[in-house]
Amino acid sequence: MNWRNKCTRNTLMMKSSMIRNLVEMTKSVPGLISFAGGFPSPSTFPVAQLADLYREVLHEDGKNILQYGSTGGEQELKQAIIDQEELDITTDEVMICSGATNGIYTAIRSFIESGDFIISESPSFLGSLVAFEAVGANILPVTMRSDGLDIEQLKTYIKQNKSEKIKFIYTIPDFQNPTGITMSNEKREMMIKIAIENDILILEDDPYSKLRFYGTAKNSLFRIAREKFNNKSVVISIRSFSKLLGPGLRIAYTLADKNIISLMNSWAQKINVTTDRVTQRVVSRYLEKGLLTDQIKHIKETYKPLCDQMVSSLDKYMPENVKWTKPEGGMFLWLNLPESVNTDNQFKKALNHKVAFIPGSKFYSQGSEKYNGLRLNFSFPTAEQIDEGIKRIADTLS
Amino acid sequence: MNWRNKCTRNTLMMKSSMIRNLVEMTKSVPGLISFAGGFPSPSTFPVAQLADLYREVLHEDGKNILQYGSTGGEQELKQAIIDQEELDITTDEVMICSGATNGIYTAIRSFIESGDFIISESPSFLGSLVAFEAVGANILPVTMRSDGLDIEQLKTYIKQNKSEKIKFIYTIPDFQNPTGITMSNEKREMMIKIAIENDILILEDDPYSKLRFYGTAKNSLFRIAREKFNNKSVVISIRSFSKLLGPGLRIAYTLADKNIISLMNSWAQKINVTTDRVTQRVVSRYLEKGLLTDQIKHIKETYKPLCDQMVSSLDKYMPENVKWTKPEGGMFLWLNLPESVNTDNQFKKALNHKVAFIPGSKFYSQGSEKYNGLRLNFSFPTAEQIDEGIKRIADTLS
Repeated sequence: MNWRNKCTRNTLMMKSSMIRNLVEMTKSVPGLISFAGGFPSPSTFPVAQLADLYREVLHEDGKNILQYGSTGGEQELKQAIIDQEELDITTDEVMICSGATNGIYTAIRSFIESGDFIISESPSFLGSLVAFEAVGANILPVTMRSDGLDIEQLKTYIKQNKSEKIKFIYTIPDFQNPTGITMSNEKREMMIKIAIENDILILEDDPYSKLRFYGTAKNSLFRIAREKFNNKSVVISIRSFSKLLGPGLRIAYTLADKNIISLMNSWAQKINVTTDRVTQRVVSRYLEKGLLTDQIKHIKETYKPLCDQMVSSLDKYMPENVKWTKPEGGMFLWLNLPESVNTDNQFKKALNHKVAFIPGSKFYSQGSEKYNGLRLNFSFPTAEQIDEGIKRIADTLS
Repeated sequence: MNWRNKCTRNTLMMKSSMIRNLVEMTKSVPGLISFAGGFPSPSTFPVAQLADLYREVLHEDGKNILQYGSTGGEQELKQAIIDQEELDITTDEVMICSGATNGIYTAIRSFIESGDFIISESPSFLGSLVAFEAVGANILPVTMRSDGLDIEQLKTYIKQNKSEKIKFIYTIPDFQNPTGITMSNEKREMMIKIAIENDILILEDDPYSKLRFYGTAKNSLFRIAREKFNNKSVVISIRSFSKLLGPGLRIAYTLADKNIISLMNSWAQKINVTTDRVTQRVVSRYLEKGLLTDQIKHIKETYKPLCDQMVSSLDKYMPENVKWTKPEGGMFLWLNLPESVNTDNQFKKALNHKVAFIPGSKFYSQGSEKYNGLRLNFSFPTAEQIDEGIKRIADTLS
């Protein structure tokens, strides 16, 4: 049976998220300190509350929530999200997805034909970049500056390409993965203006914005587009409970123009019909009981000292020619080494020193790789591990 | 913002599952007896057992199962499935999916380019047909006979088309949706032989085979291909817990050659990363505790008398020129009315008589519609509703 010649070209050429493979590699090294994964801290998962809620919702309404439900999610959960986020929208502008990746996939499935373009921050989240490439999109990488992507480069790309072929600007505006950078309010507005003028959608990926330890919260692109530009359709915003309650639950949501949501629902019918209804109901109850506010507070109290520890250990151990971002929240920061250093090679050296990170090259689209950066995660290790691990990385550089 | 011209052609042309819309319509008619839905009976859902298990698995291992997990599902659940089904395969030949539709989508996403062909039983499950069309496949409809699809017509299609463009034969071999027909052993073997000879994959959709009330269980195409033809790759088999534990859980699985599973996992990374891990663990425990065997027995004891009732009410009330299938299991049977009758029109008449079914035309691919059949579901209504409802349908025919 020669089934291989039956696969689509994209399937055979498709890249895996190499990050998953790297994280796998680190598991076999005893005593290793890992800053590689993108894992929230399990100490923050509200295990006992969720255990009670699962039992409660099944006893209360099991015969209903074990049945087929609506594509696009439960009314109850959509309303609870709107209330929690204090959004001035209706439930037909919300869609429940099986994790943020599922929301992003459904969005690109609805809009991308092979050969289309997506403008992306560079570096960016590899999981999205490989999904874009898998559906046949060409990625136009825009360099990240300390206050968000380079607006001039964005404009140049739009000038150089037919704007009808550019389908999305993909951005993670808050505590970006992998850089930890937050986009300034000014750039948020400029980007929305440019997107509206050129008829390009913005795909706002927002897994982290609620985890802010420093500074003032910024309005989402979704909110700015509606409130300042009176535009309901330019931003599709994808948000997730993965970093708040646990990624094992696979509950995320998309906010968008109701007609776009309706199209995405039509794809969802073919892709996975609905998201686990029992878990949807559990998350509804969690929100309705007002538990999320304290939970977010608890996570921030957990992550802030870890972030502080990482920055102070970097100050202590790193040579002068190494620079890093100082994130105001989230789970990651980014190191820039001298241009002569290739962190793909440093990765192997680091494993020998029993410490791991993700080499920067893994966060670039094909052909736009840079090699002198690396990503560090501070949400998963302990403060002691952070200090010792940063010391070990510094040792590999000397 | 003119986002509509940004959508893919397939997105704008995409059909929804009209069945969902019809089922929606029936909800607003008071006193209506519905045979329209494809819902398992909520009385069979093991609510209390699941409530206990959710609590148990979270208390036992919450910090782990709320974290990110492996794409393609938990080892533990894969092994529990292999043991339950007494399969001679390894866990890398199993993939956990978020419902059977998600498994089917991931399979077609891996193999179908726009313009490819899928051979399908006709009529068949509309949810799959619209998914095939959405990814750009042309459907070649093969007429259903009383013992499965018409093999001569299947051969003719293969002769008429380039076999490398025919990617799948899609079949629901047991208690097919919508007809209730089960494929004979002879046809199973013929189909596998033809598929191997012509290098065409078989996509076996198996949501119902465990719900057999009459006759002897038949081997799946997956098992026959391996045991009789020593071929591991020709059949991709998709199975689900939706009709056994409840569709709200969204737990299904794909069995296939390990290299095909690996490709499908690569797509799953982009489509939804993983299936809800808490629910995966609950289903693992449910299987490990040996609860499924009794559960299946309980469902069969629930559905068999309902099926019997429907057949005997049809005998009692239907005019002589109406014929129906006598399913040996599953959830549906199929009525054939005289060719002059259009069940799309009968549907509206039936609503006036406060009874609903799905008109047969909804189960055909575009351009191959027939109008004189209809599908009846017997798993959801009570025996009394079945008798009264069949009487009402008979009344609309006189």
